[in-house]
Amino acid sequence: MPHCPPALADSAFLRACRGEPAPYTPIWLMRQAGRYMKEYRDIRAKVSMLDLCKTPALAAEVTVTAANRLGVDAAIIFSDLLLILQPMDLELEFLKGDGPVIRNPIRVEEDVRRLRSFSPAEDLGYVYEAVRLARASLPGHIPLIGFAGAPFTLASYMIEGRASRNYEFTKAFMLRSPAAWHALMDALHRPVAEYLNGQIAAGAQAVQLFDSWVGCLSPSAYRQYVLPTVHQILSEVTPGVPVIHFGTGNPALLEAMKEAGGDVIGLDYRVELDEAWQRLGRVGVQGNLDPCVLLADRPAVLREAGRILDQAGGRPGHIFNLGHGILPETPVDNVVALVDFVHERSGRR
Amino acid sequence: MPHCPPALADSAFLRACRGEPAPYTPIWLMRQAGRYMKEYRDIRAKVSMLDLCKTPALAAEVTVTAANRLGVDAAIIFSDLLLILQPMDLELEFLKGDGPVIRNPIRVEEDVRRLRSFSPAEDLGYVYEAVRLARASLPGHIPLIGFAGAPFTLASYMIEGRASRNYEFTKAFMLRSPAAWHALMDALHRPVAEYLNGQIAAGAQAVQLFDSWVGCLSPSAYRQYVLPTVHQILSEVTPGVPVIHFGTGNPALLEAMKEAGGDVIGLDYRVELDEAWQRLGRVGVQGNLDPCVLLADRPAVLREAGRILDQAGGRPGHIFNLGHGILPETPVDNVVALVDFVHERSGRR
Repeated sequence: MPHCPPALADSAFLRACRGEPAPYTPIWLMRQAGRYMKEYRDIRAKVSMLDLCKTPALAAEVTVTAANRLGVDAAIIFSDLLLILQPMDLELEFLKGDGPVIRNPIRVEEDVRRLRSFSPAEDLGYVYEAVRLARASLPGHIPLIGFAGAPFTLASYMIEGRASRNYEFTKAFMLRSPAAWHALMDALHRPVAEYLNGQIAAGAQAVQLFDSWVGCLSPSAYRQYVLPTVHQILSEVTPGVPVIHFGTGNPALLEAMKEAGGDVIGLDYRVELDEAWQRLGRVGVQGNLDPCVLLADRPAVLREAGRILDQAGGRPGHIFNLGHGILPETPVDNVVALVDFVHERSGRR
Repeated sequence: MPHCPPALADSAFLRACRGEPAPYTPIWLMRQAGRYMKEYRDIRAKVSMLDLCKTPALAAEVTVTAANRLGVDAAIIFSDLLLILQPMDLELEFLKGDGPVIRNPIRVEEDVRRLRSFSPAEDLGYVYEAVRLARASLPGHIPLIGFAGAPFTLASYMIEGRASRNYEFTKAFMLRSPAAWHALMDALHRPVAEYLNGQIAAGAQAVQLFDSWVGCLSPSAYRQYVLPTVHQILSEVTPGVPVIHFGTGNPALLEAMKEAGGDVIGLDYRVELDEAWQRLGRVGVQGNLDPCVLLADRPAVLREAGRILDQAGGRPGHIFNLGHGILPETPVDNVVALVDFVHERSGRR
């Protein structure tokens, strides 16, 4: 593992990642730097999503501001899953209200061959620089998380060209052209692994692999079309650096996702944390408050968070988080109250 | 059970519903009468979705045409889950391309009180008439399925006003105003139960309860906010008439859905049929081919269908179906090939 000062190595978050006891349950929140927060909206009023991601000083600023404002136990570098597609010659745009769009999606086998191979260090150096800057200005005891999109989630965007309800094009491609599908997975393997390791070298203490859309697959499809590549990627992550492996949308995949790798498995809000952890056995778990709970009133937030802490029962290896990203309409006060509650309640054990 | 001639009672579909051996695995397909079929598009070119649903002769025609064209083992009455909302004074529209919209959604507790109570026999009589007409013109050995939306799925449309990705309004309502939520469930209980029984009285041999969007809930939320009402509804279905209880989006709910009721549990494509059936124990199962498979080539269709038949292993109580509705871009020939394959392969055992 790269140099990790004792204040970081001993942090509640990294202890939990390693399955060690911690003085309280660490918490951070997916998309904790985002539109629900005024400080973020103020910056986004001046720059586009892509410009924010590509301006290291600003990306570092929103990363650090969010972590400090909320009092969470880890920061996650502000970036986007899909940036990695640009150097492959896919034309990525963020449309107002509609989210990301790929102008030239992959639809036939030949499109896979036309993908440009690239070096993350050259083409995504701005992310590494943001990691360096964020690490330098974060408090010395707050770990920084790097991340990447998992191959299935990236491929589904590459093929659909946008968010999808049914992933028709992706699945039809996979079933009709399994060889081209595996070529696409291969094309993603090296850059994703390098990209994670580059963020680690730049100063991240842990990484999360986001397989946000993988839940549209059955366990057998996951094992056949996805698991081998995820396993390869995760086995190439810098030794000693904890990996959080996160997916949403299908609790039936959890065992296969654990098999693919990760020190901590991210749970979405569709499962009970205790049942899921029992099924998974010896591994850490992260989660799993429904982001919609933060739209309700304070008593509901604390009640639901308390239920999750009770289910975890203070077992080492639990990182509190949402089951998916914070929603844009979330009141910041509810988020701060959640963080404080998790710290107080779990610290009192 | 209402009068059921021997040719119907002995059909492969009703045998499977009762868990009895059948000469082959029965198959029907959710949304088998739909946009993917030319005969359906020809009619929809002349009438709107709502007019089609409300013209019994036409609704019966598309119901029967689809069943005959495909050679499936059951017909399902052509209708829409949301029609039941109109007599409650919710303003339902179908927008081209955007799907259903409720102009005056429920957003605060008072909105629940303003819902009109109504009699399905009066306000949804056109559906019963369509059932009568379809029953009269279907072959004498092909059962007809009636259906209704389940309370959560109906409530989520009532509250969101349209299809949703996160169900923010629904969940916030549920968590903030549990009493009003339960009042809403109560307001749906009697009409949904009556509506199913009215379709049975009009000539349906089985019914399916569609909880299409329930998969956004955790098991504990399902048990607290949804299960009791579903259980009440299903316990009031005319004795002796099989009930298929279908949900999508969350395999972790299967045990709780079985507890809520149903002779057959509908599986979506996110689970392996054998694993799910083992978890569920003594109950029939319906499913669970991914609708996207029908967009691939013929070998993929037959391979994936064969895998599901192998998983079911010819055990009595399996009804072959998709894991969700047929997609509009599906080639009809693939559907016909699927039906023939399931019959031949399972009949050969």
